[in-house]
Amino acid sequence: MAGTDHTKTPEPALSDLATPTVILVEPQLGENIGMAARAMLNCGLGDLRLVSPRDGWPNEDALAASAGAVQVIEAARVFKTTAEAIADLNFVLATTARHRDMTTRIVTPQQAAGEIHAALSKAGNRAGVLFGREAKGLKNDDVTQADAIVMVPVNPAFSSLNLAQAVFAVCHEWYLAAIGDAERPALAIPKETRPANKAELNGMLKHLGDELEASGFFHVAGKRPVMDRNLRNMFQRANLTEQEVRTLRGVISSLTRTHEK
Amino acid sequence: MAGTDHTKTPEPALSDLATPTVILVEPQLGENIGMAARAMLNCGLGDLRLVSPRDGWPNEDALAASAGAVQVIEAARVFKTTAEAIADLNFVLATTARHRDMTTRIVTPQQAAGEIHAALSKAGNRAGVLFGREAKGLKNDDVTQADAIVMVPVNPAFSSLNLAQAVFAVCHEWYLAAIGDAERPALAIPKETRPANKAELNGMLKHLGDELEASGFFHVAGKRPVMDRNLRNMFQRANLTEQEVRTLRGVISSLTRTHEK
Repeated sequence: MAGTDHTKTPEPALSDLATPTVILVEPQLGENIGMAARAMLNCGLGDLRLVSPRDGWPNEDALAASAGAVQVIEAARVFKTTAEAIADLNFVLATTARHRDMTTRIVTPQQAAGEIHAALSKAGNRAGVLFGREAKGLKNDDVTQADAIVMVPVNPAFSSLNLAQAVFAVCHEWYLAAIGDAERPALAIPKETRPANKAELNGMLKHLGDELEASGFFHVAGKRPVMDRNLRNMFQRANLTEQEVRTLRGVISSLTRTHEK
Repeated sequence: MAGTDHTKTPEPALSDLATPTVILVEPQLGENIGMAARAMLNCGLGDLRLVSPRDGWPNEDALAASAGAVQVIEAARVFKTTAEAIADLNFVLATTARHRDMTTRIVTPQQAAGEIHAALSKAGNRAGVLFGREAKGLKNDDVTQADAIVMVPVNPAFSSLNLAQAVFAVCHEWYLAAIGDAERPALAIPKETRPANKAELNGMLKHLGDELEASGFFHVAGKRPVMDRNLRNMFQRANLTEQEVRTLRGVISSLTRTHEK
């Protein structure tokens, strides 16, 4: 076949990887679709599907709000029904903000991440998460097509999440599970002492800076801002207690008196 | 003092509880401030502070985008400098998207939640999280005023988070730690029913098997035990409620009547 194959090797799309699909059902505002695409790409996801977007597709507002997640917007596919949009998926979760009058298993985003990983670990399997339209959420007919419900735990007195926020909340847990603990930064042991507040720390630092200035420490003009920052950074990391700040002020005063002799 | 005190008992403000403060440093778009306020209230937080918001304050766009988080917007306080905005705080975290050229401890939102809880567990202590302006983030001078950096782990190839998204990512981990595992959902079931017990499930399965037998379904001798097991397995996985079992028996009876005609 040499000489007849002129097709380029396509770049692997994010959607080709074993990542979950995001399905927005009847989204209304293009801006929210764009922000959802941005949130997806923040979490390494690329396969976006839209079920009957109210304002049609493509949508300029979506592109603008995606803040550069153009590849997600351009690869998005539109379907007429939820059933068609999820036809090739083996494992589907439905995101809802409220309890439904139906018997359904509910998982947290963290648990959802584990289940999606388990589903995707089988060759050829595809998984996805359904998100309903703004304000009203998913219809019960959509929810019953899912294997389980994902509910993002939020303040019950104010539980309405922005659509892109909900997408991020679910997808980010998947991303965290995907990168694993190894790549997360390390934790230092917190102090048990009562920490100084910022006014106390700043008071000490200003005291120190002023005395250094008076002593001619900043002999090069303009040197103080950089030195101030370096000193602040040092003392900040020290996690000083209120007592220690007072001690340091005593030290500064004492050194100054010696200096003035 | 009876008869002279006409003050109403004030509702406890969210900001009076031991919750962290959110400080937006030089935010640009009112819409982002509003969405950040909404994200805060989703996570049960109410104390919002603004350092030199570009378009002044109050801001109509912020109110509109808050989607009802009016209490957070109206209680927001404006400060000229970051130092003033955090003067009364004992523990401060700075959110950044990129590594800084300085020696600073970095924590994940989950670790930050633990540290904020530890800080707030001491009476009189206050904690807060700094978020920088859109696109540019916090200045190094702001970062050095914090005790540690919070970094939300995201796709390194597309790491720019919407401001409200970053606020949610950090505050939601605090909220999850605050509510604890006990209050997270497991299985939703309508109040008026309960999970079916095994006798009910078996009764329905026997009903089904008997009717199938009568209808000639098991035309091959000895086929029933295997088919019974397959049917049981299917209905077992469905986690049926008592109501649903009764519904299924009604379905079987109805189908049988049609069949007998």
